[in-house]
Amino acid sequence: MKTFDLLSGEEGRTQRQKRNTEVAALSTPNREEGCGTQGEGMSPETPSVDSSGSTFTPLVVVELASDTKEEAIGWLLGRIRDKQQNGGAEMLVEQLGPGVGAQEKQNPNMFLVGASWQRLLSGAEEVGLFKEFSDGSMRAFTSNNKHNFKDYKGDGDSFLSMAECQYIIKHELDTLRAKDETHVPGYTQVKLYPGKSIVRRMQSKGILIQLFPIHEREELKRLSFSWYKKVKLSLQPLDDIRHYYGEGLAFYFGFLEYFTFALLPMALIGVPYYLFDWEDYDKYVVFAVFNLVWCTVILELWKRGSASLAYRWGTLSRKRAFEEPRAGFHGVLGFNPVTGREEPLYPNAKRQLRVYLVSLPFVLLCIYLSLYVMMIYFQMEGWALTVHDEDPTFWTGILLFIPSVIYAVVIEIMNLIYRYAAEFLTEWENHRLESSYQNHLVLKVLVFNFFNCFASLFYIAFVMHDMVLLRQSLATLLITSQILNQFMEAFLPYWLQRRRNKKMIHKVQKRRTLEDVELPLADQVRLEAEMSTYLGTFDDYLEQFLLFGYVSLFSCVYPLAAVLVVLNNITEVYSDAFKMCRVFKRPFSEPAANIGVWQLAFEAMSVIAVVTNFALIGMSPQVKAYFPESETQLILWTVAIEHGLLAIKFILTFLIPDVPKHIQIKLSRLEFESLEAFKKKKMLEASELRKVVQ
Amino acid sequence: MKTFDLLSGEEGRTQRQKRNTEVAALSTPNREEGCGTQGEGMSPETPSVDSSGSTFTPLVVVELASDTKEEAIGWLLGRIRDKQQNGGAEMLVEQLGPGVGAQEKQNPNMFLVGASWQRLLSGAEEVGLFKEFSDGSMRAFTSNNKHNFKDYKGDGDSFLSMAECQYIIKHELDTLRAKDETHVPGYTQVKLYPGKSIVRRMQSKGILIQLFPIHEREELKRLSFSWYKKVKLSLQPLDDIRHYYGEGLAFYFGFLEYFTFALLPMALIGVPYYLFDWEDYDKYVVFAVFNLVWCTVILELWKRGSASLAYRWGTLSRKRAFEEPRAGFHGVLGFNPVTGREEPLYPNAKRQLRVYLVSLPFVLLCIYLSLYVMMIYFQMEGWALTVHDEDPTFWTGILLFIPSVIYAVVIEIMNLIYRYAAEFLTEWENHRLESSYQNHLVLKVLVFNFFNCFASLFYIAFVMHDMVLLRQSLATLLITSQILNQFMEAFLPYWLQRRRNKKMIHKVQKRRTLEDVELPLADQVRLEAEMSTYLGTFDDYLEQFLLFGYVSLFSCVYPLAAVLVVLNNITEVYSDAFKMCRVFKRPFSEPAANIGVWQLAFEAMSVIAVVTNFALIGMSPQVKAYFPESETQLILWTVAIEHGLLAIKFILTFLIPDVPKHIQIKLSRLEFESLEAFKKKKMLEASELRKVVQ
Repeated sequence: MKTFDLLSGEEGRTQRQKRNTEVAALSTPNREEGCGTQGEGMSPETPSVDSSGSTFTPLVVVELASDTKEEAIGWLLGRIRDKQQNGGAEMLVEQLGPGVGAQEKQNPNMFLVGASWQRLLSGAEEVGLFKEFSDGSMRAFTSNNKHNFKDYKGDGDSFLSMAECQYIIKHELDTLRAKDETHVPGYTQVKLYPGKSIVRRMQSKGILIQLFPIHEREELKRLSFSWYKKVKLSLQPLDDIRHYYGEGLAFYFGFLEYFTFALLPMALIGVPYYLFDWEDYDKYVVFAVFNLVWCTVILELWKRGSASLAYRWGTLSRKRAFEEPRAGFHGVLGFNPVTGREEPLYPNAKRQLRVYLVSLPFVLLCIYLSLYVMMIYFQMEGWALTVHDEDPTFWTGILLFIPSVIYAVVIEIMNLIYRYAAEFLTEWENHRLESSYQNHLVLKVLVFNFFNCFASLFYIAFVMHDMVLLRQSLATLLITSQILNQFMEAFLPYWLQRRRNKKMIHKVQKRRTLEDVELPLADQVRLEAEMSTYLGTFDDYLEQFLLFGYVSLFSCVYPLAAVLVVLNNITEVYSDAFKMCRVFKRPFSEPAANIGVWQLAFEAMSVIAVVTNFALIGMSPQVKAYFPESETQLILWTVAIEHGLLAIKFILTFLIPDVPKHIQIKLSRLEFESLEAFKKKKMLEASELRKVVQ
Repeated sequence: MKTFDLLSGEEGRTQRQKRNTEVAALSTPNREEGCGTQGEGMSPETPSVDSSGSTFTPLVVVELASDTKEEAIGWLLGRIRDKQQNGGAEMLVEQLGPGVGAQEKQNPNMFLVGASWQRLLSGAEEVGLFKEFSDGSMRAFTSNNKHNFKDYKGDGDSFLSMAECQYIIKHELDTLRAKDETHVPGYTQVKLYPGKSIVRRMQSKGILIQLFPIHEREELKRLSFSWYKKVKLSLQPLDDIRHYYGEGLAFYFGFLEYFTFALLPMALIGVPYYLFDWEDYDKYVVFAVFNLVWCTVILELWKRGSASLAYRWGTLSRKRAFEEPRAGFHGVLGFNPVTGREEPLYPNAKRQLRVYLVSLPFVLLCIYLSLYVMMIYFQMEGWALTVHDEDPTFWTGILLFIPSVIYAVVIEIMNLIYRYAAEFLTEWENHRLESSYQNHLVLKVLVFNFFNCFASLFYIAFVMHDMVLLRQSLATLLITSQILNQFMEAFLPYWLQRRRNKKMIHKVQKRRTLEDVELPLADQVRLEAEMSTYLGTFDDYLEQFLLFGYVSLFSCVYPLAAVLVVLNNITEVYSDAFKMCRVFKRPFSEPAANIGVWQLAFEAMSVIAVVTNFALIGMSPQVKAYFPESETQLILWTVAIEHGLLAIKFILTFLIPDVPKHIQIKLSRLEFESLEAFKKKKMLEASELRKVVQ
């Protein structure tokens, strides 16, 4: 590619475009990564040349139902290919050829979507992508200024990563809007109105089955090797993860890594504490104080660390685009007060009614049920204890653990069922925006999971005052839920996947898995289409949230908890990496500037942790010894100091800047420069105006 | 002016400019308000015509020391008059003529600064002024688009208010920077370096004595009439106040008004409570609960109300300009990492050392002293009680109140002394930005004042448990401080002012005050120059903050407090309005989008109020009656419920949007439109590019 760099500027453009067609034929496996990379090992028929003279690099797969009517297909492809001036997406589309082991049962309606370089660059500008500028700062990409961006070496180079290209294409397809069509051709029941996103409507009506970006096999192999295949002490390749999967996922793995490291001091203190003071349940004051400070400090540090990551990845000062309505959102046609476009409107009052009159009572009912189950657990616990006390044998000793284990399993099952119910309810609340949907879902799930997982521990600690039972219960809950989670999360989907793949691969003439470099594109795409869909980082964050709860709330009475969580998270990194690379379809990359609503959730938990730890401290025999005569005095002092600490915590959160100083300076410099440039431009205009006047 | 509207567009410009010179001569007292208005009653020599053909309207007064060297004056005026391309401010300056009663002792170095219409408009763009657009929305003013703004009727009309023009001129003078001068001509010791603000340097060295905007007598007369002269039930003319004094001051008066209205329900509930339950100190639970809800709700509502005001005044989405260093800031010359300009730098570490090693211990020492004084007060109180108990007479009955009154006066004196010390210390901390200086000053003053004013009340309530004394002490503190404040704030400055004016007016041949329409401009300016300088809203907000504290913390035991505060605030409105119009120089208008750091201060106070009221509830006999056997149970329940309430308070603060929905929609619509316009422009560029390529 380097040789074409000499032809820069406007006059070189047409010439370069012609040569691009030759490049496609010349492409060798040595080409650098980037959108143009997937050529390696591809059967020679795939990188074809489209009518406008650009090379075709398939990036995204669109799968329509196999019985889709021809006219609908033709119309959709036409709209995707149409020029932007005519309201099209100006993309390149090709039908996926039959695989090597082609069969009758295969879905013929699979299409590969790509785009010319010019189109991708203008798309990058539309979605507001930030790229590294020649001076090392991150700036919003603009075509006018493209030569000043650091990695821009001419058209068709590795300037945009494949994940970015796929994100751009997804955005452009999502914003492909109906013009004057009243319905999808061939489907009179699938209504359209001007401005409606075509893809979302077809998706919600089941005509468009799925839309997913394709894997980049070479890159994936390299990534998975450096990520989980080699045994190593080094950190995760966060930049590579971001490059391949986008910022949203990279932030999850970054947080997972950070959280695990943050737990190390606690684990290190915990081990000797556990080993030497085995039976001394009362010495937990020091540990509670440590927890108190720890859970405040690590979250503040993460916020600053995450701002650094976001700055490096160019998402820190990225403005959020206007959100499109969700695919499932419905309502009566009206005019959006912001955009003035015609779109379905759903009265906010109606949604509030659904939230407060149905969802809220439902959540409260579920919490009541959960507390009811908890009381049954305590009855079982009491019964087991009686049996053991009456005639203690080895088996009754084991029996003592049975209620806790059963309760832990029941908790997990209840969480799972509730999760589906919460999703259904939130869907039914009919939120217009995905972000609002997510917030309501997260709130519902968090509140219930908090009660479901921690209520029994709070009850044991503050009502039963039984530190031995608290320790035993915490250990059982933590270990059981970790084992269940690891199983449900990685091994089950992998096993299902293997079964499905095996069937598939038998058909594809004994070719093996995705890892096989010789697999033709058509087969690769069909294999990927069969993989499970990754549903986002929700469950992964939720798991970390609950682990954070176990550790920060009660770990002072069971110092091994931190060690268990560290061990869990080390396997979690590997199993999550594995499932991203091998089990799931590639997800679309999502720009993110932080871990979003989860930062808030973790901070709320840390406030609860401060209160809980302080209550535990107040209950400890050492502290009680200071107030031998009056319990009232003890409580009043504990409460007063706790209020002071909470106040200090809030003041600290407020005082510590969320963005590190050196990044603040860089951001202000950018802002200052753009302001100066604007002023200069204005001054120039003014002086020109003056000339005209004179 | 209307007749010139026909000459719009580029070709009409030169013609219009020529005619402007005629307009100056034609100007009649009937002209509409706006920057061009002050002509009424002005002696005919003042509205002169400058060399470039624009009319001269004096807006801002610059007063140099009377012994300033001629070369410095000439140089400064030259820089102010110089073209913007040459780094000047491109303003008009004239020396103020001698007054009618001219004397030898008068300072001759007073200058009037004005600017041409073109210059003011380009300045409006530079400072980022928001004006009403033709569609009713508020948008940043741009010269290119000026004809689409609502009140823009052609050059020289009332588009910019006089306060806005003065703000623009102040900004331009402040940003008038040294080029290659190494010092102010004639003053080798007053060093300059490229980029240093000339005005600020001359100000900090005492060459420039003051810089102030002149009053607009007609407008002031109208404003003061509608504000405080007529007896009325209507609200304050906030829009007029904003128009004349700018948003900063209008927000203060808006808040004062809102706060007073918010107190009305409390006052209304308080009166019968006070009248019928006179001796029943124990029925305060209901009132404490009311306080709890009240102080949360009113602040949330104010935030929304203030956003509405800020939207109407166009400051809500206004971006803050880059702040210049403070006038008194000093340091070693270096390069600013943001702007790259050479300017004094002061190491942050050194400042932190000063803050934590000097200021913090000083504040703590002061608080200790304040608590020491408090203990002396309690001793006096005890002594008076003993005297009264031994031999109760009428005089010993009065003696009972003496310690409280003395203590209240001492508190006010300590506050005053501390205020000066805090200012000195914060100045010495050498903050680079005015905002940082203000934040540190506010924090210092608030913390001390809080302890100084409320410590005794907390001590009486929670250590002495003496509700009768609490009530008496609260009443004495509140009433004494109100009387002192009203006296110090309005009557004292007014009296001083009158004495000063009388002397002045005797000189000016029996002409009366500012109100006199016939007063010539030169005398008006000299009168104004003698007036006190308004030091900002700090002390006014501080007073309201302390009143809010008295009301929200302890008013449940003394329900008349709210009534007293309401009465105080009604007179406060009048005395503040009076002092703004008659006692002080006109202040420069300051754009503001809210009440700034005070919102935070009031919210912090409301959190403290929730805790305090809950503690009072827990101590009440009614609640104690529910837990007859165990005080521990009572405290635990109180604490648990209090934690829950605090959590709900934080969740509510988080959930209630700070900006009302209808304004959010308007803001998003603006953002959406600018985004669409940008997209359209990009698409046009791209299609043009394509044409070039083909």
